[in-house]
Amino acid sequence: GALGGLGLALGLWRRHTALAASREDEEDKELRQRFMAPPVSGLRELRRRRRELRSRMELLIMETQAEVCRALAALDPGASFSVDTWERKEGGGGISCVLQDGEVFEKAGVNVSVVSGLLSEEAARQMRSRGKSLKAKDGKLPFCAMGVSSVIHPKNPHVPTMHFNYRYFEIEEADGTKQWWFGGGTDLTPTYLNEEDAVHFHKTLKEACDKHDLKLYPKYKKWCDDYFYIKHRGERRGIGGIFFDDVDSPSKEEVFQFVKSCAKAVVPCYIPIVKKHCHDSFTPEEKLWQQLRRGRYVEFNLVYDRGTKFGLLTPGSRIESILMSLPLTARWEYMHTPPESSKEAEILEVLRNPKDWVH
Amino acid sequence: GALGGLGLALGLWRRHTALAASREDEEDKELRQRFMAPPVSGLRELRRRRRELRSRMELLIMETQAEVCRALAALDPGASFSVDTWERKEGGGGISCVLQDGEVFEKAGVNVSVVSGLLSEEAARQMRSRGKSLKAKDGKLPFCAMGVSSVIHPKNPHVPTMHFNYRYFEIEEADGTKQWWFGGGTDLTPTYLNEEDAVHFHKTLKEACDKHDLKLYPKYKKWCDDYFYIKHRGERRGIGGIFFDDVDSPSKEEVFQFVKSCAKAVVPCYIPIVKKHCHDSFTPEEKLWQQLRRGRYVEFNLVYDRGTKFGLLTPGSRIESILMSLPLTARWEYMHTPPESSKEAEILEVLRNPKDWVH
Repeated sequence: GALGGLGLALGLWRRHTALAASREDEEDKELRQRFMAPPVSGLRELRRRRRELRSRMELLIMETQAEVCRALAALDPGASFSVDTWERKEGGGGISCVLQDGEVFEKAGVNVSVVSGLLSEEAARQMRSRGKSLKAKDGKLPFCAMGVSSVIHPKNPHVPTMHFNYRYFEIEEADGTKQWWFGGGTDLTPTYLNEEDAVHFHKTLKEACDKHDLKLYPKYKKWCDDYFYIKHRGERRGIGGIFFDDVDSPSKEEVFQFVKSCAKAVVPCYIPIVKKHCHDSFTPEEKLWQQLRRGRYVEFNLVYDRGTKFGLLTPGSRIESILMSLPLTARWEYMHTPPESSKEAEILEVLRNPKDWVH
Repeated sequence: GALGGLGLALGLWRRHTALAASREDEEDKELRQRFMAPPVSGLRELRRRRRELRSRMELLIMETQAEVCRALAALDPGASFSVDTWERKEGGGGISCVLQDGEVFEKAGVNVSVVSGLLSEEAARQMRSRGKSLKAKDGKLPFCAMGVSSVIHPKNPHVPTMHFNYRYFEIEEADGTKQWWFGGGTDLTPTYLNEEDAVHFHKTLKEACDKHDLKLYPKYKKWCDDYFYIKHRGERRGIGGIFFDDVDSPSKEEVFQFVKSCAKAVVPCYIPIVKKHCHDSFTPEEKLWQQLRRGRYVEFNLVYDRGTKFGLLTPGSRIESILMSLPLTARWEYMHTPPESSKEAEILEVLRNPKDWVH
């Protein structure tokens, strides 16, 4: 992948200075073609501090964005991604790729952001409430946050919605030490339950986790069920997947490798499900149930989602990239209750009582 | 109206005990027909404590509910209101009237609730943060809250959405003294700007306010613009109206009379606008813009609205009655920006910079 390619190119560049300039140009060209847009930090800067985890993570999220966009675009040849690069005046920026109103996808957004600056008081308070002791210097906490996040809403009610997000955070404390952690996850929100798909999705994620530690999948599967909970409905948003936050052990390198495995699992856990069902026939009633479920998706994202709430409260954040997660269309009916033993009641049952899919 | 009728009946009842039983039955029958359902507190109980403001307010909100429902139903003869009475196990209950998917109205809900019990710690905290000093007895604060609230989403994009809410709150403190206050308001959310309608709406509200104090309309008009603000969009939800909260002066009686005037103004400020436009022709593009504005409505209600947030966090609250305010359908497009000088840009300008409509 681009990561390995860049590492190799960087090695060559140090030894063959005479050839460096043209080699670098070629490498730039290759990466530009590979990524959806030039990285926020710039290729030159990423090259300069190539051993730092920040740089490697930025390349990973860029590569993940491009990989997912290419896989989605291949399934929806009539549509294309709009690519917006944006800057944040307080520091950093991002790249938002959105495909809207395609044949297969109603709305698919894949967003990369790499932001830095000083942590707002509100943000610091939120983090301290999660148990972090952040010692500020003159009330200031320099931070750097980066991540890739995505929500894919397909048109066909037999193709589930998928969300993933992988992120890295660094905060510099008063004494110069750096706190760091990773967070992320991948989860599925079907309109109708398909057990085979659920098993495939969870199994693929489990395999990605198991390569690193057998304890990870069960722990992060449960965390996912707990996190994506629409409390006022007593329902989960979907059938879960994995979710984790504040992970800073056993080591930066090991967590990064784990996150890399998860990011690489996004395409194989989801794309086969899209391929399998995107031409399934469906009834107007099935489309309607999908729209009601979309309404619940909106409820979760606007009322509970930590990332969305944090974004809406953070000065200078790019609202369109945050709310890109909302579906193109949604519906709320008063007192809608599916009939007993219907397919609609079947998925509701699973959303109320999460199941183990892999055993 | 029913209020006067009941007062009269109660007077008679005391003097002519022989006739009381049958008179009471007749009165009950009349009120039952007038209201959408029997009042939460029961007619007998309301009669017993008829001089208390709680009883008079409960009759006012019941009458307002019925008045508005009848006016809406008259405009949408094919549709009808479903009437649900519900109980809250912690104390009290309510009556939810919802008309869904009619010819004229996409979704119209008018809800009455009369609840009592002990204030939750969270609710007490929220109230104290608004400047109330609530002295609890063994940590307990008995309260009684009642109100009528309504959101009307019409189908035609040339008919605006309307919201109103009038409520009364009582809390008993440790020393037995009662704190009380009123809150409420009526506001309009058009898809397209129609100046004549905006002026009619605001003028009708201003007249209701002016009968009581000339300072009220300007003050509550501004409060409305400030309250219905979608901060992350830099837009108001609509073109405003009036909004007030925590009003406890000059006297209970005077504030009640003011609230009554406001409640009586709901039908005259809105219904003529519906009548005028409900048969206007519209294009698919106009319907689409309406759907995008509905999305903003959802954003305000789920992210900012005090009542909705309070309801979602309160144990035992009736979720379907709280979320009745959400539109039947809504839409979110990434980076939608109307062309300059379009009708869509015209309303956005007013949402960004509220205007004075009555001068």
